[in-house]
Amino acid sequence: MRDLEKPTLLLDESRARLNIQRMAEKARRLGLRFRPHFKTHQSRDVGRLFREFGVEAITVSSVDMARYFSEDGWRDILIAFPANAREKDEIRRLAGAGRLGLLVESPEVVRRLGGDWPAPVDVWIKIDTGYHRTGIGWDDVEAAAAVAGEVQALAGLRLKGLLTHNGLTYGTRSTADLRTVHGESLRRMRAARAALSERGFKGLEISVGDTPSCKALEEFDGVAEIRPGNFVFHDVMQLEIGSCGEEEIAAAVACPVVALHPKRNEAVIHGGAIHLSKECLKTRDGQVIFGRVCLPEGDGWGKVLPGSSVAAASQEHGIVRTTPEIMGRLRIGDFLIILPVHSCLTVNLWQEYAGLGGAAFDTMRSPGRAAGNRRNPAWRT
Amino acid sequence: MRDLEKPTLLLDESRARLNIQRMAEKARRLGLRFRPHFKTHQSRDVGRLFREFGVEAITVSSVDMARYFSEDGWRDILIAFPANAREKDEIRRLAGAGRLGLLVESPEVVRRLGGDWPAPVDVWIKIDTGYHRTGIGWDDVEAAAAVAGEVQALAGLRLKGLLTHNGLTYGTRSTADLRTVHGESLRRMRAARAALSERGFKGLEISVGDTPSCKALEEFDGVAEIRPGNFVFHDVMQLEIGSCGEEEIAAAVACPVVALHPKRNEAVIHGGAIHLSKECLKTRDGQVIFGRVCLPEGDGWGKVLPGSSVAAASQEHGIVRTTPEIMGRLRIGDFLIILPVHSCLTVNLWQEYAGLGGAAFDTMRSPGRAAGNRRNPAWRT
Repeated sequence: MRDLEKPTLLLDESRARLNIQRMAEKARRLGLRFRPHFKTHQSRDVGRLFREFGVEAITVSSVDMARYFSEDGWRDILIAFPANAREKDEIRRLAGAGRLGLLVESPEVVRRLGGDWPAPVDVWIKIDTGYHRTGIGWDDVEAAAAVAGEVQALAGLRLKGLLTHNGLTYGTRSTADLRTVHGESLRRMRAARAALSERGFKGLEISVGDTPSCKALEEFDGVAEIRPGNFVFHDVMQLEIGSCGEEEIAAAVACPVVALHPKRNEAVIHGGAIHLSKECLKTRDGQVIFGRVCLPEGDGWGKVLPGSSVAAASQEHGIVRTTPEIMGRLRIGDFLIILPVHSCLTVNLWQEYAGLGGAAFDTMRSPGRAAGNRRNPAWRT
Repeated sequence: MRDLEKPTLLLDESRARLNIQRMAEKARRLGLRFRPHFKTHQSRDVGRLFREFGVEAITVSSVDMARYFSEDGWRDILIAFPANAREKDEIRRLAGAGRLGLLVESPEVVRRLGGDWPAPVDVWIKIDTGYHRTGIGWDDVEAAAAVAGEVQALAGLRLKGLLTHNGLTYGTRSTADLRTVHGESLRRMRAARAALSERGFKGLEISVGDTPSCKALEEFDGVAEIRPGNFVFHDVMQLEIGSCGEEEIAAAVACPVVALHPKRNEAVIHGGAIHLSKECLKTRDGQVIFGRVCLPEGDGWGKVLPGSSVAAASQEHGIVRTTPEIMGRLRIGDFLIILPVHSCLTVNLWQEYAGLGGAAFDTMRSPGRAAGNRRNPAWRT
């Protein structure tokens, strides 16, 4: 790692592969369709790692992201964000390029999307099981039936099932809590499906998404499909929830130390909001942090440093607060490896990953988007 | 605005021009060198607007940003971030391309930067007047003199002055408070300069940076240079501090409404953390918000909607909480215009701005970085 010069997004490909393999095997064992969410990595090159484990169906969060992955040959894509009829033309082009899934929650949007599609499109109804971000309330059968009826009335749209994202799992801090919150959400999804079945909308599938449940739990009664995304990298949030170990975190940001303030046990790093994001979390002991801190080790990084965190982040500056003992070992020009609070938002800030094995991995924002596994000149040359 | 399809970063060029003109005129009137910080816009095309008002000297926050603007012909660039000696080779190339300024706060970094430069380099010592992000304490004359001595010992480095960023002004909520906080910081800068002068380091300049002071105050005794950046766009943070009016906010994000939840007076927009950033602020009445909300009007946007804000932001979703009256007027497919909490971090998420006049403005992340004022096909075609 000694050849790095400036802040760099690191990817531990071995860990990412292992994360994918474990989730793919779990889905197979539980008889669930595995449709990983690619919004976490937003990378064609990382996406290709999933192919090694037989993944063919994916989830994305925007029409732009669907097009990006479609251009790399993905032929079964679900856009798990409420469909925006203003993007109808692009959505139709995508429907002609492979199997496409859409998410809806109002009859009006279904009408605006219209019929007469170049190929049949799967339509999922977004259900709110209590998170209250968006979706039709799980017990509002009238509203769900209205959408279902509208879908069935249009040629080319196939009513596929009910989909939820139970974001409440991110607020749990023990597996017991997680199990309760997840179980209640599934119970509500099954109730919504039963109510729609009584109205004549038979055979609907259930699709669920959050990484904490998919990672830590085994109970998926009645579920056809899981859509976790974050598990490919994990992050400090998953660590705090207890749904990963630190040895499963696969993306991090290498940041040079540019100033030391021993009196307040702080190191200033070139690694701020534009490298990590402003996502923060309150730890169990009440601190607000923007990342955990490791030292470089071999080709990657070592264990999380005790008593150390990114305590503040402005545009370019990060403030690492640490112990006097660690402070005494730091030198200006050293690199610190920051584990992000929320890897999806961190990765979104970068145009490229530096793989620990020496390869560069592209992102949706890579200049030219031409790449493939280019050699990264700043990395272990 | 009816031709927009998806989330779009908007630039009101007329307002940006007026913002630049006012600050340039104020600097001239007060006899201050105007070295605007380009980290806010990170755009070659926006940078060119500054040239219309005679700006020739600029500030940037990274070596990469210096190179980007150097390539567009800027020949007087200050990198106002503690110099990272690991980027020495690139810094030397920049020093050969025009007048370059660097920021240092330790003798060790100065030594590592070394002497024998292709052209003389201005060196500023970073001073901490109480914000405690980084820099040498204003009353630690020993530490400042050690750095100054090291700079003078190296051929090609010119000790230029003392620089501070008084971020404490962002915590003020009245002009009286702002004046007090700013006045104390300047007093400390002058004291630091006097103490260094007594040690034989004569004729040092003072450079200050924060937008709230530069925008709202007239008192700059002893200051040679101002480096505000945010003023080109302003944002909800400046509005909350009272250092701009809403008619001076020049950058915003147009977001389509994708779902409505009238029971809780919430609209879901395609406009989340990857469009706005996770920067939030607590308003005077205790709410945490991620942006203010306007309706499209003419080619731009109207006044801030009362009782409305972005109350939550996940990766792609924004939750707009509003009044029953406004809720009743919203339709799925409408666009809402979101004024960002912190425009620097919002803009950093985009690869392009759509100017209200129909032109596209590039950013450091534009694909190919080839642009110029390309026509934006999604904008008023």
